[in-house]
Parts: sequence; structure tokens; C-alpha cells
Amino acid sequence: MFQTAELGQKVPREDFDRLASKIRLDLLSLQQELRNADFPVIVVFAGVDGAGKGETVNLINEWMDPRWILTCAYGDPSDEENERPLFWRYWRDLPPKGHIGLFLSCWYSQPVLDHVHEVSTPDVFYRQLDHIMAFEKMLADDGALILKFWMHLGKKAQKQRLKTLEADPLQSWRVTKADWRNYRLYDRFIDVAEQTLSRTGTGPAPWTIVEGEDPPYRSLAVLSALADGIRRHLAARAAMHATVEDPPPQPWQNEQPRPMTVLDKLDMTLALEKMDYVQKLREARAELALMVQRARESGVSTVLVFEGWDAAGKGGTIRRLTAGLDARSWRVLPFAAPTDEERSHHYLWRFWRNLQRAGRLMIFDRSWYGRVLVERVEGYARPEEWMRAYAEINDFEEELVDHGMVLVKFWMHITKDEQLRRFEERKDTPYKTWKLTDEDWRNREKWDEYQIAVNDMVERTSTRHAPWVLVEANDKNYARVKVIRTVCEKLEQRLGKVLVRR
Amino acid sequence: MFQTAELGQKVPREDFDRLASKIRLDLLSLQQELRNADFPVIVVFAGVDGAGKGETVNLINEWMDPRWILTCAYGDPSDEENERPLFWRYWRDLPPKGHIGLFLSCWYSQPVLDHVHEVSTPDVFYRQLDHIMAFEKMLADDGALILKFWMHLGKKAQKQRLKTLEADPLQSWRVTKADWRNYRLYDRFIDVAEQTLSRTGTGPAPWTIVEGEDPPYRSLAVLSALADGIRRHLAARAAMHATVEDPPPQPWQNEQPRPMTVLDKLDMTLALEKMDYVQKLREARAELALMVQRARESGVSTVLVFEGWDAAGKGGTIRRLTAGLDARSWRVLPFAAPTDEERSHHYLWRFWRNLQRAGRLMIFDRSWYGRVLVERVEGYARPEEWMRAYAEINDFEEELVDHGMVLVKFWMHITKDEQLRRFEERKDTPYKTWKLTDEDWRNREKWDEYQIAVNDMVERTSTRHAPWVLVEANDKNYARVKVIRTVCEKLEQRLGKVLVRR
Repeated sequence: MFQTAELGQKVPREDFDRLASKIRLDLLSLQQELRNADFPVIVVFAGVDGAGKGETVNLINEWMDPRWILTCAYGDPSDEENERPLFWRYWRDLPPKGHIGLFLSCWYSQPVLDHVHEVSTPDVFYRQLDHIMAFEKMLADDGALILKFWMHLGKKAQKQRLKTLEADPLQSWRVTKADWRNYRLYDRFIDVAEQTLSRTGTGPAPWTIVEGEDPPYRSLAVLSALADGIRRHLAARAAMHATVEDPPPQPWQNEQPRPMTVLDKLDMTLALEKMDYVQKLREARAELALMVQRARESGVSTVLVFEGWDAAGKGGTIRRLTAGLDARSWRVLPFAAPTDEERSHHYLWRFWRNLQRAGRLMIFDRSWYGRVLVERVEGYARPEEWMRAYAEINDFEEELVDHGMVLVKFWMHITKDEQLRRFEERKDTPYKTWKLTDEDWRNREKWDEYQIAVNDMVERTSTRHAPWVLVEANDKNYARVKVIRTVCEKLEQRLGKVLVRR
Repeated sequence: MFQTAELGQKVPREDFDRLASKIRLDLLSLQQELRNADFPVIVVFAGVDGAGKGETVNLINEWMDPRWILTCAYGDPSDEENERPLFWRYWRDLPPKGHIGLFLSCWYSQPVLDHVHEVSTPDVFYRQLDHIMAFEKMLADDGALILKFWMHLGKKAQKQRLKTLEADPLQSWRVTKADWRNYRLYDRFIDVAEQTLSRTGTGPAPWTIVEGEDPPYRSLAVLSALADGIRRHLAARAAMHATVEDPPPQPWQNEQPRPMTVLDKLDMTLALEKMDYVQKLREARAELALMVQRARESGVSTVLVFEGWDAAGKGGTIRRLTAGLDARSWRVLPFAAPTDEERSHHYLWRFWRNLQRAGRLMIFDRSWYGRVLVERVEGYARPEEWMRAYAEINDFEEELVDHGMVLVKFWMHITKDEQLRRFEERKDTPYKTWKLTDEDWRNREKWDEYQIAVNDMVERTSTRHAPWVLVEANDKNYARVKVIRTVCEKLEQRLGKVLVRR
């Protein structure tokens, strides 16, 4: 795979100078155009030590305007990073639309090195690469331009390069003991690199292999590929936006009878008498307090997702759930319209950024499922966007669960009649009127479309590791107890049963 | 001070129920009004263990809508928190405008406990309280409503309370060994509390002492004070916005001759010949690379602030400065218009949130000085706002320096003629035209006003721990070398001299 990068390619100084000024001009004007574009540029640098990754990153910063470039490099994770899933540290550094992110020793680094040093088995290694591909695909699907450069050096060239660097007093700090240790594993490293590149080089985020021996050559190779990539992507995105709209639906498409959904199968008469409710709620809350306390001590985080119809009782249930818990242990994370910072990132970014530290109970009041509910029904997301969201969401949730989090998702269900009754009640109750907006009435008109969206959502995202819990919520008492008891059970499954003294 | 909170005040259950429903309604409607207000509400809970701080916070979350309430409680700082100044963890949790933040075991906690346990001397303790007051004053000046509740229990009542909690299987987890340890220091704790309250209770963030023995009484006391505070503050802010505008300046005020400023005293003929420049730049950069490397290893962070005229060469200087440095060690942080999230916080929030981890070189390309430069000159900040900003900025910088950061501030100065020359050059150089905007020409018209603002800025914020470096930048070569050499010197002062092998 790397023979083509050991050809001894060189660019004479005068050619470099002549070309460089042209490419530089080009990059600067592309960067200006990019600032108004609707996508970020993500550039990954990996490869052989000494092949000029750092120097190339510096050159990009020197040639372009560093104000719209984010250079990110990674060492050992901090404790705050360790308390979240692996990719959290990369999500928090992703460049917003219009910006360029340069990533060094990033998501490829640890998987490759672990495999080189035989810390990880091939199984684990391939699983890690799968994760990387899912991550890159998700960003690319969202419009990101991803360019990956593998900076290569032959074995002899690497040795020579490390020695030259060491001999230069201004550069010697660049060479560490780890570099020499890695050098001794050169052949194995190249094997693993080949596997990595062939597995992750297809699709929307291809690798460019660059011969790293001659600085002028490698600089021109990377910078011209960067310019080329940005130019093509700008053109492709412009063309995409110019394509024709979806045809409007035919009348008969809207007149089809609504298919039966999982929601139709719920027993909506389930209810709890007041006396029974008070007793059961008290018991469930006491148990929950103990479980949450124990989860906090064990560093086990819990993610609760609440979705449901307007007026289905999400807020009231959340308040009953949190009452009596140690305020240090939980946080309600409400999601309405995204902020402008959030809009300039992938739609999952705002959920990643809100992941709390280890041991916390995170309560998402509305969530990433907005993508396949409101954004689908209201047309804020295009069909291809919300359709691929199921897989993206499953990936995301798998990362949470793999990290050891307990994840429970509730759909709070009420019947259409019950919703009407509650809307009317809100209208007439002074301290509830603010809850009822015109939007609620508009959403109600789209009940059937939402019901189909919910059915699809449950079908495609109720996975073994993250099942949906459908809550019959016509009776608030029943719903509240069911939710709290379910959370207790899930925590028990993870942490073991707690005996509540009564 | 606390006798009035040991009276055995009680509210009978039936009175509580009657009043509670009224207050609750009131709070809910106030919370709705608050959502559109231009200030956040910051509620601090402190006091005797067992006096109901946690329960009261829970009750507020139960009675109001938790979606616009942020409950924050603090334990030991994480390593990411330890790598920033003390108040960073509080800044990152501050509620945006329209929201309520409930703070438990927050900025009062450690200073009080350290003093109770005689870990800190009175000197240190008072210094910490001064910091707290500056912090609260800054937020209050920005419009925040700050309410502080001291929840009190007499000595006997505390003992009784801890025993009762321990006996209740559902509550016993609330009582820790630390609580009993603290109980044995009750008298000393009360002494320190008195000092704390009397010192920090004046001005814009007063304390309310609440007798904590009877839950109905203390709940009503806190919640009615909360409602009252929000109502008054909403009215006060509305009245403030309705007050008359500043009178327009008289013509003669604008016709005054411009007073002489520190900038007039600079020797703008300073320059470096090309050959000399290349040599000196090379040396300075080599030294900087070593110093930055050493700072990284020692965990010493460096903050460089770049301010200056349009076209003064900030960008070019920053690029020369960073070229050749390890990309993992530095980050350019450019600041233009704030995002909507940033606009919903205090103006310093966006600088706090951008503080990087220990050992990094942070390069602020424009900074918090925007408050006293562009915001002052363009009238984005009212006179009382930019005038108090000098003190706020000095406090902020003192926190950075106290934390061990190296802070250097550069004003890049060019003459008005030189700026014109550079504007013309930008107009004529294809890859520089984008740099020149209409705004640059508009700013140029206000040269004199800016010059006065710069003079005031230097006068009021060039402190011993954070002096301004005025850079004569008519000659780019001279300016670049001066900046890089200055950074080297400041790092040497901190880290000791490095011998560069030549």
C-alpha cells in the first residue's frame, strides 16, 4: 500500500516557491468562501512519526487565517473525559460550520497504537475502526468535508529523519523516547496501518497517502489536496442545494387510513387509585433515592429520555421523580429550539455537549429523537436526513451503553381525547395557561403523522441495549409510578438489589 | 446574629397548605415572566447542615418548572477544574438570562470550612471573601438578581435533626461522618458564619437568614422571599429601561482638541533591517519553542492578549509566533461578535469558557478589552458599564495570575498614515482584499476616540501583575521580533532562563 509513498519524490525549491504562492492565494480565497458555507472541514493527520504531520499543520496555520482554524491534538484523557464515552473529547472539539478543524493524534491514534503494541485483539481493533467509520460517516452525511492524510516515511527515511531532528538543537524536543520505541516496531506499525487504511478509506472520508520525506513535496501535496477538496465540496454543496424539491405528495397518499401502530396496542385504562398511588409512589421514590445514591457512589451514570405527546405529563413525572433526590446527583436537560452555536454543528452535538460527569442522573426532557419526530413531521429535516438518523441514534446510544451508562427511554402516551381534556383544563387553570401554546394545537392536528413517526421510532430504535418503555399515561398516577419503578428496576439490574428497610 | 433564627418559628400545616398554593401560583407566573427578562437569577444556599438546604432546593424544583432551573452543587474539583482559576467551575455553571440557578455548597463552602478547620488564616479567609464579593458585584452590576439564603439551626436543633434523619431509613444516607465532625465544631462554625455574613451581606447581594427547624416555616420563608425578589427585580429592571437616555453631547465636546496619549509617546520610527530581522526572528522563535515546551511540561499556562488598530499586524504576528510551535501547545482564540449563548451571559463569560487546560499557550486575538474599546466607542456598552469594566477586568486578570498563569497584553500600534497605506495595499493585493471591510473604514473615522479609549485602558488596566506592552508596529519586522522576544522574557521570568545551543 505504501510503495507509492517511498519513491523519493521531491520538489525543487524554486518550483515550490512559484507554486506555493499560487496555492496560498487559492487557499485564502477558499477559506473566505468557506466561512459562509454550511459545512465544516475536518482534516485528520496520521502516519509515521517524523513524516511531517506537525510541520504541515503549522504550515496550514501559517498560510491560512488561523482564526477560523482549530488545531486539536490529544494526549491522555482528562478525568472529565474519562467519565464520558470515548468520542466525547472529539465531539467537544468539532469545528462549527465554516471552520476548519485540524486533528492530530486523534481517533485513529489509540486504536492503531494499541493494536501495534498488542494491547488490543483484532476483534477489539476492528470494532474500534467500525466506530470510527460510523462517526465519520455521520459527520459526512451531515455535510462535513472530511480529508484524511496519511503521512508516510520508509523505514530508513524514518530513522534518518529522527536522527536529523535530534541533531538540531531547535528541533530535538520533537523526538521522544516513544518515537524510538515506535520506530523499533516499524514493520508491525505498517501492517496495522495498512489494515486501518484499507478498512477506513472507502466512502465519504478517503485517505490520501503522502510521501513525507521531502518537506516541499509533502507540503504541496497536502495543501493542494486541501484546496482541491474544499473547492470540490463547495461546488457539490451548491449543486445539491440547487436540485429540485421533492414532488408534493399525491392526495391519495394523505387519505390512506392510518396503519395500526404499537401505541394502539396499549391498555389505556390502566390506572391507580389515590390511596394505592400515594403508597406506591412513596415506596418507589424511597428505593430510587437509594439507587441514585448508590449509582453516584459507583460512578454509574443514568440517562433518562422523556418523549411524549404534548400534555402527556412529562414535566409532572420528572418532578415526582427528582423530588427527594440529592440535588447533586441529577440534572434536568430540557431541549427546545437549538441555539445558534448548536445549529452550526451536527444535530447530535448538543446532546454530546450536555453529557454530565460520572455517576449522575441525566434527565433529557425531549431529546435527539426530535430528529425523527418533530423534525420529520414538520419537514425541518429532509427524508434522507431523518431516515439515516435511526442508525445514527442507535450508534450514539450504543456508545453511551458501552461506556457503562444506564439508558432508559420513555414514551409518555395519552389518547387524543385525553389530550383534548387536558388542553381544556390548562386553558381554564390560571397557573397552567402558559403551558398551552398555539403550537400545541397545531401539533395536535398532526396526531396521525406523529403516531406513525412514533411507531417507526420504536421499531427502529428499541434495541436490546436501549429499549423503549411505552407508558400508558391517561392516568397520571399510574404513569408516574410506572416510570419511577422502571428506573429503579433498570438501576437494580446494573447495581444489584437494595433492601429498603420499611 | 442568629438569635432571630432560633425563635422556634412554626407554620401550622393548614396555614402552609393555604399559603403554599398561592405562592406556588405566583412563582409559576413569575417564572414565565422571567423567561423573557434580561437577567438571570442566582440563588445561593448556605448554612448549618440539616437546616433544609437540599429539601428547599428540591421544593423549588418541584413547585416551579425545572426546565428553566439549573441546580448546581460542588464537591472536589475535577482535574480540568483544578487546571483553571478557582471560579472557572462557577462561571461554567452560571445560568443564562431568563433562568434560575440554584447553588449549593458553592463559592462560600470551601472558604468557610477551611477557616472553621483552621486550614486558612484570617488573611486568606478575608481575601477569599473579597473575591466572592467582587464576583457577586460583577454579576449584580450586569443585572443578575442574587439571593443568598443562610439556613440556620441552633446547636440542639442540629443534633436533633441529624439524629432524626439517621433514624429514617429513607433519609439516613443524607447524614455523613463529615456532618457529625462539623457538628462538633458548631460554635466555631457559627463564629465564622457571622464573619462571613456580615462581610458579604451588604450591597447588591444580601443574605436572608432563615430558621430551618420547621419545614413549613422555612419553605414559606425561602419561597416567598424568592417570589418577592424576582417580582421586585423585574419591576426595577423595567423601570431602569424606561429611564431617560443620556443627553446628546454638546458640539463643543466633540471639538475639543484630542489630549495627548501614551501612544503619542511611542517612537514609531523603530525598525529592523531584513537581514537583522531574519536572524533575530529565528533566534527568538527557537527560544520560544523551548520555553513553550517547558511551560507545557510544568503545567504553566500563558495568556497572550492581542489588541490593536485594524491592519496593525495582529494576525501576521500571531502566525509568526505560533509557527514552529508544537500544535498541541497553543490555540488561537479569535473574538468577533458574541454568539446568542454568549450574549445571554455576562460579557466575561465567553472568555472564561475559552480558558484552556494547564500548560497551554492561549492567544486571544481581540479580547475582553473590547468592552472598553469598541463597545465604548460604538456605544454598545453604556458609560457606567464600560467604566466599571476596568475594575472587573483587573479582577479577572488577577484571578488568572493568581492561578499561576503568565499574562501578557500587547497593543499593536501603527500611525494613522501607516494604516491608510496598508488599507490601500490590501485593496490592491488580491489575496488581502477580503481583509478590508467597510467597518475598517468606519473605525478609522473614529481614530481619535479610539486613541483616547486606548489611553484610558492602558492607564487603568496596566497593573503590576498584568502590564500592557505597547508595540511600535509601523515596521512589521520590528513589531514581530519585539512581541516574540517579550513573550520569551515573560516566560523566562517565570520558568528560568533556557540556554539555546547555537
